[in-house]
Amino acid sequence: MKGPRRGNSSYTGPVLRPSEQSPPAGVRAWLHEIIFESDTPAGKAFDVALLWAILLSVLAVMLESVAPIRAQYGAIIRIAEWVFTVLFTLEYVLRLCAVSRPLLYARSFFGLVDLLAILPSFVSLFFPGAQSLLVVRVLRLLRVFRVLKLVSFLGQAEVLLTALRASRPKITVFLGAVLSTVVIMGSVMYLVEGEANGFDSIPRGMYWAIVTMTTVGFGDITPKTVAGQFIASVLMIMGYGVLAVPTGIVSVELAAASRHGLNPEACPGCGAEGHDVDAVHCKFCGTRL
Amino acid sequence: MKGPRRGNSSYTGPVLRPSEQSPPAGVRAWLHEIIFESDTPAGKAFDVALLWAILLSVLAVMLESVAPIRAQYGAIIRIAEWVFTVLFTLEYVLRLCAVSRPLLYARSFFGLVDLLAILPSFVSLFFPGAQSLLVVRVLRLLRVFRVLKLVSFLGQAEVLLTALRASRPKITVFLGAVLSTVVIMGSVMYLVEGEANGFDSIPRGMYWAIVTMTTVGFGDITPKTVAGQFIASVLMIMGYGVLAVPTGIVSVELAAASRHGLNPEACPGCGAEGHDVDAVHCKFCGTRL
Amino acid sequence: MKGPRRGNSSYTGPVLRPSEQSPPAGVRAWLHEIIFESDTPAGKAFDVALLWAILLSVLAVMLESVAPIRAQYGAIIRIAEWVFTVLFTLEYVLRLCAVSRPLLYARSFFGLVDLLAILPSFVSLFFPGAQSLLVVRVLRLLRVFRVLKLVSFLGQAEVLLTALRASRPKITVFLGAVLSTVVIMGSVMYLVEGEANGFDSIPRGMYWAIVTMTTVGFGDITPKTVAGQFIASVLMIMGYGVLAVPTGIVSVELAAASRHGLNPEACPGCGAEGHDVDAVHCKFCGTRL
Amino acid sequence: MKGPRRGNSSYTGPVLRPSEQSPPAGVRAWLHEIIFESDTPAGKAFDVALLWAILLSVLAVMLESVAPIRAQYGAIIRIAEWVFTVLFTLEYVLRLCAVSRPLLYARSFFGLVDLLAILPSFVSLFFPGAQSLLVVRVLRLLRVFRVLKLVSFLGQAEVLLTALRASRPKITVFLGAVLSTVVIMGSVMYLVEGEANGFDSIPRGMYWAIVTMTTVGFGDITPKTVAGQFIASVLMIMGYGVLAVPTGIVSVELAAASRHGLNPEACPGCGAEGHDVDAVHCKFCGTRL
Repeated sequence: MKGPRRGNSSYTGPVLRPSEQSPPAGVRAWLHEIIFESDTPAGKAFDVALLWAILLSVLAVMLESVAPIRAQYGAIIRIAEWVFTVLFTLEYVLRLCAVSRPLLYARSFFGLVDLLAILPSFVSLFFPGAQSLLVVRVLRLLRVFRVLKLVSFLGQAEVLLTALRASRPKITVFLGAVLSTVVIMGSVMYLVEGEANGFDSIPRGMYWAIVTMTTVGFGDITPKTVAGQFIASVLMIMGYGVLAVPTGIVSVELAAASRHGLNPEACPGCGAEGHDVDAVHCKFCGTRL
Repeated sequence: MKGPRRGNSSYTGPVLRPSEQSPPAGVRAWLHEIIFESDTPAGKAFDVALLWAILLSVLAVMLESVAPIRAQYGAIIRIAEWVFTVLFTLEYVLRLCAVSRPLLYARSFFGLVDLLAILPSFVSLFFPGAQSLLVVRVLRLLRVFRVLKLVSFLGQAEVLLTALRASRPKITVFLGAVLSTVVIMGSVMYLVEGEANGFDSIPRGMYWAIVTMTTVGFGDITPKTVAGQFIASVLMIMGYGVLAVPTGIVSVELAAASRHGLNPEACPGCGAEGHDVDAVHCKFCGTRL
Repeated sequence: MKGPRRGNSSYTGPVLRPSEQSPPAGVRAWLHEIIFESDTPAGKAFDVALLWAILLSVLAVMLESVAPIRAQYGAIIRIAEWVFTVLFTLEYVLRLCAVSRPLLYARSFFGLVDLLAILPSFVSLFFPGAQSLLVVRVLRLLRVFRVLKLVSFLGQAEVLLTALRASRPKITVFLGAVLSTVVIMGSVMYLVEGEANGFDSIPRGMYWAIVTMTTVGFGDITPKTVAGQFIASVLMIMGYGVLAVPTGIVSVELAAASRHGLNPEACPGCGAEGHDVDAVHCKFCGTRL
Repeated sequence: MKGPRRGNSSYTGPVLRPSEQSPPAGVRAWLHEIIFESDTPAGKAFDVALLWAILLSVLAVMLESVAPIRAQYGAIIRIAEWVFTVLFTLEYVLRLCAVSRPLLYARSFFGLVDLLAILPSFVSLFFPGAQSLLVVRVLRLLRVFRVLKLVSFLGQAEVLLTALRASRPKITVFLGAVLSTVVIMGSVMYLVEGEANGFDSIPRGMYWAIVTMTTVGFGDITPKTVAGQFIASVLMIMGYGVLAVPTGIVSVELAAASRHGLNPEACPGCGAEGHDVDAVHCKFCGTRL
């Protein structure tokens, strides 16, 4: 399991790696222990406080966007947001100090999220309103999985990701087919319905085709002519059958992913993993399992 | 099967347990026989009468909410509701008397439902309108399964619940991803579309994002700008693929649940598992199971 | 295969049975040959003519409902409808004559459809407008499967029906859960939103809850208050996961149904069918397949 | 793999076949090398240039349909479209010259698409507006798969197509059932709701029934009467369960297609099949595959 994860799941690795590779000394080790690990009481307290800070800061951004609340508590919320921003900036700098390879951390998934979580505040000094983007902080909550030791949850996420990754070629082919249909149906509806009925350009027709094929069906633009309604009916019934394809793909890959997950034994001969549950011999070297 | 069910399916167990553990004597035994069991004619008659009373009382609550009917038959319906409430209160007291451990029953699933089914009537004395909550009585109909001896149906419910319980970690991870997307997309749309187009706060934008991702698509709030419609299109196509994930999860778990739940015995001859429920001989080596 | 089909698929059996049981003599045999069978040229010609007549009569009913067409060609269409009705009535009488047990045919699926296909015309003499119900004739097109010898299609329909039948207990449990949710959420929304926002009774709230949970989302009634939109969001995300359940159920049963369909061999020992593809021994008596 | 693909996947074969069957001589061989193959630098450059030309021409058609852009850059866009049309016409003629059997190419999938990609321009000389149909050029992008050597993607498309083809009989039966339901429900709603509520003909009712059953739910036509809303609720819940059928079908066929499509070899030792693609040894007996 170690091998492949080191290769392609870059979001948990980097923050843990430094301690494996070059043991940091003195202050950095102490910082690393508190900020990145959650085994010690101090480390756990830090992580729990961080999660609450994240939740509260996202809530503050949300509340600020509601006009009546902004009118009454606007000043307090702005102050709270800046307090959180300063705290998170401090934390980001400390994280950079705590790892032996700051650049590696800065380029990792969590490093980028940590940066994005503070940038909008500074941007909002020049472009008022940009602070709404602070909600990206919600992504920081992904750390909760490590804090709460929800390793089994992470395992499940791994299975989901494996299934999605394995489905990618099929889903790409599928999305290509869907997009081609959208372009063509959007153009046909633009010709058939025309600007009078809301289909005032091909891109607008494509927007309608996506709304229809995905069965969202807002109803802001709808066919009015008999021909348009007939074409829409065909598109809807087609979308009905098409909807089955990604579901089928993910089901099959998920079944495969969880099947492989059920037999956790490694081959005693060659150490290979991922055998089927009904396998009697290793499928790579033939050793009896 | 007994072991695990005693542990985690708390809604059928408690009401049956008393008779297993401490045989109730005299009146209580007689009450228990009638109210909780449906093997005797009296017990069955009680249960059938109860089911009809539940159905009628839910119907009465529904009818009372319809203005024209309330105007004409309001008085009669109110009286009927109070009659049902008195009956159900009486029944609740009797149930408490009939079991040897009243507190255990009161805290069980059915005990809570039985209490909730009478409370709103009394609450409505202080807060008019609260009697609409009496529809919670519909949950009492779950007893129908025991009355009608629909054991196979209960077995199916057990399979469904097992599948859902097994899917919980995956579904939690999945819901976390969906909610993060909702928070971020809601904020982006609030910034892009603005209050003029109905996206007047981030929570409103999140409501729109949920309506869109789940493909419900009310159309009460829709993107009007070109940028907004483009972002919405991306969200919809993403939701299209995402919709496949819970379906795949449940399919796989359901397949596993119905495979394992049916015949857990291994062949005594070759040890093979996964036999059908109606199998008499092992399908691999022919040994009698 | 014979045994079970005789028992529960009543719609193809009855019309074929008479010839098996009591060979009809003379005119009746000749009628039966033409009307029920499609092996002889005359029988095939009759069936093809019948299918066209059905298609045209359904088309006539549809066209009559379109106001501009009715205004111009109303008289012709009415005449055509009556011609088809007389023809179908004649055919129905002949069918009754052609079988040895007319009552059995009259009570079979196709017998009832044949009757329903002519009744609305006569009813429309007393209740104008009832002729729209003539579209029930579209069900008669199911005969097309027999005419075109689409046996493999019928086999597929059988697999679909088997899967749906096997899923029935699970789907019943599932629908029960959905309907309880609908009743409770409809009442909650009636209390929260009130008549001012379109939720003017509990049944109306239930209609809205169904529209929302099934992800149809017409948008004719939508929550306006913040509390209502929050509850609606919860209902939608719940419906999102719930949508996965019937799909999973049908997938699993369908997989089982097509697996059993793949091994059509009967056991040489006991004659039992429905063995898995990977079965080496009969699972009922142990005989080697 | 060769055999079946030659038979039923007609869109990649024809353009490649000439070189297999009759080696074209001189200029034709050179043209074929450049236009149809992408192994040589010249052939690859031609294909990449073609893909960009296709993308730009589709973009030009889309932009022309947007009124403000057409007002300002209309003339330039029209010129660009004609340039692309002349280029594509030239390419089409060259393709016809480059193959040894021009008619076979003209009748192949890509041949027809290439023709359809230039026709609308000429048609627009007589029927202004027809140039919007030029978006059919988007289908030409399917060539991208060959250019980018995305063979594995093509393999996935093959699996998808196999699954869909295998599902066809089941899907036909299913669509028949859906369409019958649509015809009958459309008529019932026309009778129940009537013209006053938007259901002004049976075809309109059928359009509504399709919008509802597919869970699109535009909301442009909605039931207003209590009876209509009740029937709509039944239809929606039915559609809810029905939605599961195509998904189940495709899932099962997809599982079968990816199982069989990946490693069709049987074990030389025990004859077992269904091995993974990466298997080197039979997982049942350990024999080398």
